[in-house]
Amino acid sequence: MKIGIVGSGNAAQTLGSALVKQGHEVKLGTRSPQKLDEWLRQVKDCRATVGSFEEAAAHGHLVFNATSGAGALDALNAAGSHNLSGKILIDISLPLDFSNGTLTLFVANTDSLGEQIQQAFPDAKVVKTLNTVAAALMVNPRSLAGGQHDLFISGNDADARNEVIGYLKEWFGWESIIDLGDISSARGTEMILALLARVHMTVGHSHFNFKVVR
Amino acid sequence: MKIGIVGSGNAAQTLGSALVKQGHEVKLGTRSPQKLDEWLRQVKDCRATVGSFEEAAAHGHLVFNATSGAGALDALNAAGSHNLSGKILIDISLPLDFSNGTLTLFVANTDSLGEQIQQAFPDAKVVKTLNTVAAALMVNPRSLAGGQHDLFISGNDADARNEVIGYLKEWFGWESIIDLGDISSARGTEMILALLARVHMTVGHSHFNFKVVR
Repeated sequence: MKIGIVGSGNAAQTLGSALVKQGHEVKLGTRSPQKLDEWLRQVKDCRATVGSFEEAAAHGHLVFNATSGAGALDALNAAGSHNLSGKILIDISLPLDFSNGTLTLFVANTDSLGEQIQQAFPDAKVVKTLNTVAAALMVNPRSLAGGQHDLFISGNDADARNEVIGYLKEWFGWESIIDLGDISSARGTEMILALLARVHMTVGHSHFNFKVVR
Repeated sequence: MKIGIVGSGNAAQTLGSALVKQGHEVKLGTRSPQKLDEWLRQVKDCRATVGSFEEAAAHGHLVFNATSGAGALDALNAAGSHNLSGKILIDISLPLDFSNGTLTLFVANTDSLGEQIQQAFPDAKVVKTLNTVAAALMVNPRSLAGGQHDLFISGNDADARNEVIGYLKEWFGWESIIDLGDISSARGTEMILALLARVHMTVGHSHFNFKVVR
């Protein structure tokens, strides 16, 4: 599949590498292509390419938003709504705000970044997922407790959610994905960041995830 | 131990019953004592008593805030800061706001109800815990997966946190309690309510809890 990834940071590169290994044609979109020279050297596969935000979105039959949360709407606007229209847009971004010295969210409680993106791009099928785990876990859930922990998924389009659930199982080996329903449930998976940050401080690393014991 | 519980709802009654069974002298505080006649009949133990908010707080060497979140500060003000001074105040309340038809929190992200209570009662040792699970699970964690799931605890006083961790293990059988540090970490355990509400809708009941798989 042709997959576009808007973003060039750790999560974008980790997803890109994993998807190329699965045989997909992946284009990472960035404002600074030279920043990805090292990534291209590491992946060393002609199915991995780099372009602008717009080129990455145009390339993908499916598009990831793997930008920093604060830059998400600007980057997706640069990508162009016509390049997202009718496509599944997997949003893994985090509405983190470090501006006041302590971690807070720049949108929370009565709204979410996932909802803001869906509202800004009504013709895209926004599916929020993978945003509750570190990049290394996103693409390799079995590296932790044999995969016995949970991922969450939100989005207004039930078919799109089911399609993405299938991809996450097939591509990365996710075994348990809890379907929370419409995109407003992204408030829950974004607001959990406040707890994740404190758990991270307590356990001393990011190789952990939640399991819903029921 | 003499324990005061400010509040008379389901959580207050469930905690009160469990603590009386453990041999403690428990006084529930309420504005409407007759509402607790049925509870007294059920518990049927002279160690269970009912009084005003003030009488419950004065009675307890240790005090629970088990009020509805929106009424917490008013109820604790009625209980009286002199009746909380120097004591551990276990805050299990939830800052839930249903006023706009959908569940939101009336404080979140840059502050928390736990912090507001600590700030309003600086001489109390506020310890936030039990607020992420349903009342039945609070007092009986082993009823779910043999207790193999996690509770969180927050509070500025490390000795108070440790004392409460000991009580939670001894009274109810909690096995894994993750110490998140100072009371600002209550933002995390309060904000997780948005996710808990959606998971509740998905699994169809409240007999679940999170486990941090690491």
